[in-house]
Amino acid sequence: MSGSIITISRQYGSGGRFVGKKLAEKLGIPFYDNELISMAAKESGFAESLFENAEKNTTYSLLYSLSMFGTSSGGMYGLPLSDKVFLIQSDIIKKVADQGPCVIVGRCADYVLRERNDVVHFFFYSDIENRVERAMKYYGLEEKKAKEAIEKTDKKRAAYYNYYTGERWGEIKNYHLSLNTDSIGIDACVDVLSNYIEAKNTKN
Amino acid sequence: MSGSIITISRQYGSGGRFVGKKLAEKLGIPFYDNELISMAAKESGFAESLFENAEKNTTYSLLYSLSMFGTSSGGMYGLPLSDKVFLIQSDIIKKVADQGPCVIVGRCADYVLRERNDVVHFFFYSDIENRVERAMKYYGLEEKKAKEAIEKTDKKRAAYYNYYTGERWGEIKNYHLSLNTDSIGIDACVDVLSNYIEAKNTKN
Repeated sequence: MSGSIITISRQYGSGGRFVGKKLAEKLGIPFYDNELISMAAKESGFAESLFENAEKNTTYSLLYSLSMFGTSSGGMYGLPLSDKVFLIQSDIIKKVADQGPCVIVGRCADYVLRERNDVVHFFFYSDIENRVERAMKYYGLEEKKAKEAIEKTDKKRAAYYNYYTGERWGEIKNYHLSLNTDSIGIDACVDVLSNYIEAKNTKN
Repeated sequence: MSGSIITISRQYGSGGRFVGKKLAEKLGIPFYDNELISMAAKESGFAESLFENAEKNTTYSLLYSLSMFGTSSGGMYGLPLSDKVFLIQSDIIKKVADQGPCVIVGRCADYVLRERNDVVHFFFYSDIENRVERAMKYYGLEEKKAKEAIEKTDKKRAAYYNYYTGERWGEIKNYHLSLNTDSIGIDACVDVLSNYIEAKNTKN
């Protein structure tokens, strides 16, 4: 079945990860998020925490990267550790895509799989008040902390994406369909998206 | 019926206008594009061509606007003509929205109706090769001219939108749903969007 390898990028608190999970369930295909981290960690022998931190907590700087280039942290082409982590994750993403239809969340998967025309790329976002509410409800944060988490997490996601892809995170042209999740609610999003996937599969 | 006032922004050659027209037909609601220009022209007494040119051929400059502010081209608050045209069009957009469900293409309608929560905003785009092909097929342009028209028209649309709204044309957050039309084709887009509208109406 072509056309149902799906990558998902999403704002923090948009419910995008949950939409992806429910969509995968509806389509009966694997869902890769933290699972992907574990697979990458097992493959590389690096600690799992390195992969968790890759998208969340590291500041990416070209200068840093250049200054590290060629120094001996050992192994993969003398690249800095953060770049090795990215490359290992990218390999895993390509491998799971080769295995067939699936949903992959985050980790620049849209960029990693950009040359395959049987992959669709979604971006999910919402209004700030809904995202704050969701962060409070599902992550147990107080309002102020929720707002901070939203700002900080999205800044990190954008920095990570922009650094590794040379593109702009959340730029419309990088996705086939972008959706404000709360404009219709999670379940309706899943319906609209599975309708889209069905059309895509029919076209291919 | 709430939730089915629809605004459409679109790249030149994306087929977005056509998607809007077919969507309006499917939903059985009015479609406003050139019709809107005629209504505005009749209302104001200005020539129809002024409204046609508003989005297509005028260069917008804040300095120009400031320099014109207060000079006597007569009538509406001493504003430059281009701003009067925008205000008249905005009034018409608000009036047709007040009349009930409809599809409105272009003319910053998303911004004009931003305070209504019963309006959904769509953005349509496509890959450059598909847009060139469409411009050649439907507008009878040669390849080079088609590419020029795409670049020029979108630049003008962006300048017009950015000038009058203070927002960025094609910025994901300004729309509820954005769609690469050629990823599934025009008819499938109409299906996915009417599915979205149905969900939106159910939610309200």
